[in-house]
Amino acid sequence: VTAPNPGKINSVTREIFSLESRVQRMLDLEAALARAQAKVGIVPNEAAAAITNACAVENFDMTALPRDAELAGNLAIPLVKQLTANIAKQNPEAAKFVHWGATSQDVIDSGLVLQLRDALDLIERGLAELARALVAQITQHRDTLMVGRTLLQHALPITFGLKVAGWLDAVTRHRQRVRELRPRILVLQFGGAAGTLAALGSQGNAIAATLAQELNLALPAMPWHGQRDRVAEVATVCGLLVGTLGKIARDVSLCMQTEVGELAEPSAPGRGGSSTMPHKRNPIGCAAALSAAIRVPGLVSTMLSAMPQEHERGLGGWQAEWETLPEIFKLASGALNHMTDVIATFEINADRMATNLNQSNGLIMAEAVTMALAKHLGKHEAHRIVEHACKNAIKESRRLREILAEEPLIQTQISAAELDKLMDPTHYLGATQQFIDRVLAAANE
Amino acid sequence: VTAPNPGKINSVTREIFSLESRVQRMLDLEAALARAQAKVGIVPNEAAAAITNACAVENFDMTALPRDAELAGNLAIPLVKQLTANIAKQNPEAAKFVHWGATSQDVIDSGLVLQLRDALDLIERGLAELARALVAQITQHRDTLMVGRTLLQHALPITFGLKVAGWLDAVTRHRQRVRELRPRILVLQFGGAAGTLAALGSQGNAIAATLAQELNLALPAMPWHGQRDRVAEVATVCGLLVGTLGKIARDVSLCMQTEVGELAEPSAPGRGGSSTMPHKRNPIGCAAALSAAIRVPGLVSTMLSAMPQEHERGLGGWQAEWETLPEIFKLASGALNHMTDVIATFEINADRMATNLNQSNGLIMAEAVTMALAKHLGKHEAHRIVEHACKNAIKESRRLREILAEEPLIQTQISAAELDKLMDPTHYLGATQQFIDRVLAAANE
Amino acid sequence: VTAPNPGKINSVTREIFSLESRVQRMLDLEAALARAQAKVGIVPNEAAAAITNACAVENFDMTALPRDAELAGNLAIPLVKQLTANIAKQNPEAAKFVHWGATSQDVIDSGLVLQLRDALDLIERGLAELARALVAQITQHRDTLMVGRTLLQHALPITFGLKVAGWLDAVTRHRQRVRELRPRILVLQFGGAAGTLAALGSQGNAIAATLAQELNLALPAMPWHGQRDRVAEVATVCGLLVGTLGKIARDVSLCMQTEVGELAEPSAPGRGGSSTMPHKRNPIGCAAALSAAIRVPGLVSTMLSAMPQEHERGLGGWQAEWETLPEIFKLASGALNHMTDVIATFEINADRMATNLNQSNGLIMAEAVTMALAKHLGKHEAHRIVEHACKNAIKESRRLREILAEEPLIQTQISAAELDKLMDPTHYLGATQQFIDRVLAAANE
Amino acid sequence: VTAPNPGKINSVTREIFSLESRVQRMLDLEAALARAQAKVGIVPNEAAAAITNACAVENFDMTALPRDAELAGNLAIPLVKQLTANIAKQNPEAAKFVHWGATSQDVIDSGLVLQLRDALDLIERGLAELARALVAQITQHRDTLMVGRTLLQHALPITFGLKVAGWLDAVTRHRQRVRELRPRILVLQFGGAAGTLAALGSQGNAIAATLAQELNLALPAMPWHGQRDRVAEVATVCGLLVGTLGKIARDVSLCMQTEVGELAEPSAPGRGGSSTMPHKRNPIGCAAALSAAIRVPGLVSTMLSAMPQEHERGLGGWQAEWETLPEIFKLASGALNHMTDVIATFEINADRMATNLNQSNGLIMAEAVTMALAKHLGKHEAHRIVEHACKNAIKESRRLREILAEEPLIQTQISAAELDKLMDPTHYLGATQQFIDRVLAAANE
Repeated sequence: VTAPNPGKINSVTREIFSLESRVQRMLDLEAALARAQAKVGIVPNEAAAAITNACAVENFDMTALPRDAELAGNLAIPLVKQLTANIAKQNPEAAKFVHWGATSQDVIDSGLVLQLRDALDLIERGLAELARALVAQITQHRDTLMVGRTLLQHALPITFGLKVAGWLDAVTRHRQRVRELRPRILVLQFGGAAGTLAALGSQGNAIAATLAQELNLALPAMPWHGQRDRVAEVATVCGLLVGTLGKIARDVSLCMQTEVGELAEPSAPGRGGSSTMPHKRNPIGCAAALSAAIRVPGLVSTMLSAMPQEHERGLGGWQAEWETLPEIFKLASGALNHMTDVIATFEINADRMATNLNQSNGLIMAEAVTMALAKHLGKHEAHRIVEHACKNAIKESRRLREILAEEPLIQTQISAAELDKLMDPTHYLGATQQFIDRVLAAANE
Repeated sequence: VTAPNPGKINSVTREIFSLESRVQRMLDLEAALARAQAKVGIVPNEAAAAITNACAVENFDMTALPRDAELAGNLAIPLVKQLTANIAKQNPEAAKFVHWGATSQDVIDSGLVLQLRDALDLIERGLAELARALVAQITQHRDTLMVGRTLLQHALPITFGLKVAGWLDAVTRHRQRVRELRPRILVLQFGGAAGTLAALGSQGNAIAATLAQELNLALPAMPWHGQRDRVAEVATVCGLLVGTLGKIARDVSLCMQTEVGELAEPSAPGRGGSSTMPHKRNPIGCAAALSAAIRVPGLVSTMLSAMPQEHERGLGGWQAEWETLPEIFKLASGALNHMTDVIATFEINADRMATNLNQSNGLIMAEAVTMALAKHLGKHEAHRIVEHACKNAIKESRRLREILAEEPLIQTQISAAELDKLMDPTHYLGATQQFIDRVLAAANE
Repeated sequence: VTAPNPGKINSVTREIFSLESRVQRMLDLEAALARAQAKVGIVPNEAAAAITNACAVENFDMTALPRDAELAGNLAIPLVKQLTANIAKQNPEAAKFVHWGATSQDVIDSGLVLQLRDALDLIERGLAELARALVAQITQHRDTLMVGRTLLQHALPITFGLKVAGWLDAVTRHRQRVRELRPRILVLQFGGAAGTLAALGSQGNAIAATLAQELNLALPAMPWHGQRDRVAEVATVCGLLVGTLGKIARDVSLCMQTEVGELAEPSAPGRGGSSTMPHKRNPIGCAAALSAAIRVPGLVSTMLSAMPQEHERGLGGWQAEWETLPEIFKLASGALNHMTDVIATFEINADRMATNLNQSNGLIMAEAVTMALAKHLGKHEAHRIVEHACKNAIKESRRLREILAEEPLIQTQISAAELDKLMDPTHYLGATQQFIDRVLAAANE
Repeated sequence: VTAPNPGKINSVTREIFSLESRVQRMLDLEAALARAQAKVGIVPNEAAAAITNACAVENFDMTALPRDAELAGNLAIPLVKQLTANIAKQNPEAAKFVHWGATSQDVIDSGLVLQLRDALDLIERGLAELARALVAQITQHRDTLMVGRTLLQHALPITFGLKVAGWLDAVTRHRQRVRELRPRILVLQFGGAAGTLAALGSQGNAIAATLAQELNLALPAMPWHGQRDRVAEVATVCGLLVGTLGKIARDVSLCMQTEVGELAEPSAPGRGGSSTMPHKRNPIGCAAALSAAIRVPGLVSTMLSAMPQEHERGLGGWQAEWETLPEIFKLASGALNHMTDVIATFEINADRMATNLNQSNGLIMAEAVTMALAKHLGKHEAHRIVEHACKNAIKESRRLREILAEEPLIQTQISAAELDKLMDPTHYLGATQQFIDRVLAAANE
């Protein structure tokens, strides 16, 4: 088991959504557009080659771009200006064909889609890795007894494998969601100034189809400048994923409490210490995932709030997406990597799990006795008797087994041996193993 | 064309999520459970029949239920108590088998799933109806010229059919999303106290499978008490839909402005008047949809925020779902019905669309001229010349056509006849008809 | 100590925001308007009396009102219609003066303000009661030792009184916020159709001033139909309060975990049991407050999202407020009452607090030793030595005191007696008592 | 009138919340702490001087800091490490006293408070500037007639000065809110590892008081590590402000629509053009403010969702604040500067305002006639007659004045001269001027 390396955890996603990548992806659209138009015959091949050549982020003034974008209203306008100027220096003829028939939103949205493809690849790889780590833990701990807890109270015995299987089950669904999402979002945006491709006359459609091929994107039925369900859906799928990661982190961090002590994030130099308390070992991976789970819902609501965009291009709504969606991805990807590391490497204290199961003087087996008794007395009467015994067990700090053994109504219905078996958690796990098998099978589909 | 009836608009969804329906759906689970257990042989057939019989909402004290639920912590506890007491009066033996092996969350969640099935059916029917209304408008107005607007400014000509096609394109995607969602949410919840079905010994799985059949729900790999991605996903799919409905409402209401006058919601007695201004005709259908589009994002964020639920059943998160998800459905369904009515019946003023297109002294055709000129002079120079002409047209309040005709560089490149054609919006619609055809085809798949 | 009564917990707020109250408060405005106009002389006294007489909610068809409101676009339109019709039956002359010069939003907003006044009174009384309960616990437990926990790990000793003082300190600030809020929200809304009071000619101002007096509200500088910061601010103040209540509930529920066992919500018949597990005692008060803390942030974001309302009256934004703000109040008031009951009546297990403090073999006193050692060796070196000892204590499951005593560098610097004192939590509470005194003093201001 | 410079618009706030500033403000706390401890006598003066000297951001490795922070769990841990190492090189004795008795959260929160002080100063200056710009427009346009619009429909005449007065009235309230906020947030955070200052023995309080003086912050009743209402409140106050800025931007951008044409953002080279349409003049200042108004509500909800932080320091909630609150300030400050520029420099087309007022063939004066008629016939009958006339005016495209003149019931009650006056908007402005006076007076308080 190697210690995780959260220092590297977010670097890849950050890179995908850096200003440099954003600009490069927009330039990829400009270059592909010139090549597509060359194929269709409305741009000279040489001009397309010159434009393609110039479309490298290294050639651009990255300080001026965001500054000019604030004044211009979007990043595409100053980018196209710089691009045109750069090309004009070398090849004034080629410069005439830059951004031909396109609008700012074509460049920005298609560039975003290219970034999202990279990001979704990353998320899918990350989910596969997380699933592998979960499967490994389930396999190892499918029989490891622990307390099942509801409303933060001891409920019944479960196994640690079943708990992890619950996490995996959700992760399998998220992988399915991402797969279903891809064809809806990985599409070209190309419509020109008002979404009609009017500037390209009768060739708009042919160019759009060729451009989509150049970028290996699907061709949508029509441009979607004002219909933002595609990008908003990406946000919601990430939001659901982060919710599950937060749930895992919540469970792990609760199990890491000093009083519980069942799990621990790995220790490593510089990881999770305290600036003042030498004994601290903080759940920093869980903190990152829980923080993401608190932040992402608000960001998803922003993407949804931004949807009612005016007419053929929105005022305010579209702009609200620009920083929000990348932020969601950074948080999702960071949380995913953190929790994958935590799950692959956390320390599991099975002894402590067993001790905790035993902590309540057997109260945790109350339902088992109730159900056995209910067969004879009905559920209501059985519940009443066992509830009474539980109260006495708490009041007198005695084991429930003892109290129950003294109860005449129980003595008549249940033998001592049967009572022993009823108080043994290993006999009260129901369909646990079948559930685990089904979850593992679904994960492999 | 009949006037819409918003008075009835929300009644069906409200019914699905009324307290009565909620309770009945929970009772449906209790009844089906007894029958399933009878089939498996652990409950007498007579008891199952008695339980099934008793599971009618009419038999319950609907004032006491919510009051007792607040004290008990959830609605299932007092419901099971009332149910047991009701049966015990007639058939004390059957009363023993009520709620056998189930937990509160099994009843509440499975009941919710049954409500969601009704609600999703309703939404799907509503989406089909909306799609039909949209198709009808597209077919009628695929050639009706109007202004395309970006950032609330005139941009280029489009047709009203294309605008509506953009709405339909999104609606088609929402129908696909709802279809993909169904298999993930329409599943049984049944796990017993800690999700192991321990109380049912070795028969848990068989009972669960039979119970799922009884309710015509799928059997999930394992219970999902603590994994809330299923219900949160329902919220997000509704959230995306409401975003699109808000977008349509925004477009319609902007077109209804007194200064624009291209659309009008139908007038009807008692509809959209003012308490003080006799000339007002307010867009009340749009107001309802826009209001939903403002409210639902926050409610979706609540469902996502609620996801990190503790261990085998959450404290606070689960409870936060109870009123939030129904509210989302009511708003989605209300907005859907309002906008379907609006689209099926709004008044379209094609003359006003034509007048508005002509309002800017031809500025709206500036791009057409630029693109024609760019073939000769390059895009940059063409843009410069036409931008200059536009400024003069505004300053001197003259038609752009005239100004352009005076420009020597244009005179040399573009004939008067060609200029006339360039200034005619019907010749500058690009791929509009192809886009419409593709959207209509996709809607029929 | 009496058991709480959550069954009654929300009834008062629900009443304030019921449809009946909403309608009555709108009628209060109509009645006061007629009286104010009678005082100014533009409505006959008899008409004003007749209108006032008719303005009782009992006289209205409460089924028709919401149904007609959906068609009309707001509740005021059908209400004014019913009111006028009711009066016309008895006194056709008086009927002419109903709603004179007012607009729907005047009635709805002023009615809302009257409801908010009642609701803020309720919240202030609730906060005072909560503060009293907190003060009582602080006074009793200012010396009760317990574990201070950071990032869910044991950190240092604190006292239970200090923990509660932290809660009280926040509550004191909330009381201050509500006081500061009142003058901004408790103002009249009265502007007529477009906020100019044009329909009242030169008498608008005089009528507005008199009307404000009639309702005991302040007169704002101008109407605020389109400026929604007043109502949105009410939402944010409630949102902050609910956040603190959620924090208290989180702390209490964590202390109630079976493994921690320091606190327990009171038990009472029907309270917090399980439908299947007889030993459960669920934190249902905390669940309600935590649920509110998950729900209210999204609702507050709705109120903020609704603020950019168009021109002199918004389309969608205003409508989005109608159900959202009452819902926030219901949740805030319910959470407040629940947590007040919990704090007034919870069971405190001081023995368990002491046991938990001792659980870590003295690791919790590591900082105390570090600080003492740092005076001789510097903080860095001291931290290194004690951290090393902590690791050994964990590894060898021995008490930190023993390990430290074996460390030569400690032996030379710290005597055994001094070490004993350093390991005693009662000597390591710093400014705890001073903090408590200051918090109590601030609460009494 | 000078063109605005949005290129500089966000630079100052960005600077306040840059990584460099964040680190420097944390170092300011460390330096002040050393000096305060020197004054109290527990740190040698020379050491305090050395520490103060070392606390300059230039001395730190700004690449390593965020990377190490991700592993450590917060920024303070690696910062204190670097600081200690830097000092140790020069003055090993002084290095021993670095961060004495403090915890990470003391440094991070107090550093944040210092940043917030700068940011609030900036917001207050910005609000004052905005208020000045608004006052100037009100003064100039208090009599400029325009259409008042409700639900996006023409309602009644107002003046442009009154519209702007509505904005100013809200801005005045925001200035009041910021003033009330300052004493609650501009307080020291200093509590040591668990909020008791235990590491400082009996001197904790004295040091805290001196430290607060050093930083010119107030001393709170107790540390607030786990009570986050202070920082969340800052978010809500910004959220309310951004809502108002969004409202102003919505109004301005609606008035800028091509069909309305009453306002225009200033034109300037590189500002608000289109990459393809030479005639476009986009409302980019409004776009920025509207985008902020869509984004900030979700961020505010994050701050509220983060409030229920566990025990003496939270896991996830605290971390969620770190990037969220600065983002809120950047958006608030950017929107504030954009709208101040827009308001100071927008072009006002009073002719177009007059034309629009006249556009509806006099329908906008319908209420005036109704009210005059109501004095004779009662409101209901008057409404009926005028509503009928309005419908005819629309149907027949004739002026309302003509239609009304033909109506016998009107002829008998209202003379032609009186009717002329009733149709003149300048006579139907009610209390407009009084409202403006009161708003201006309140702004000067």
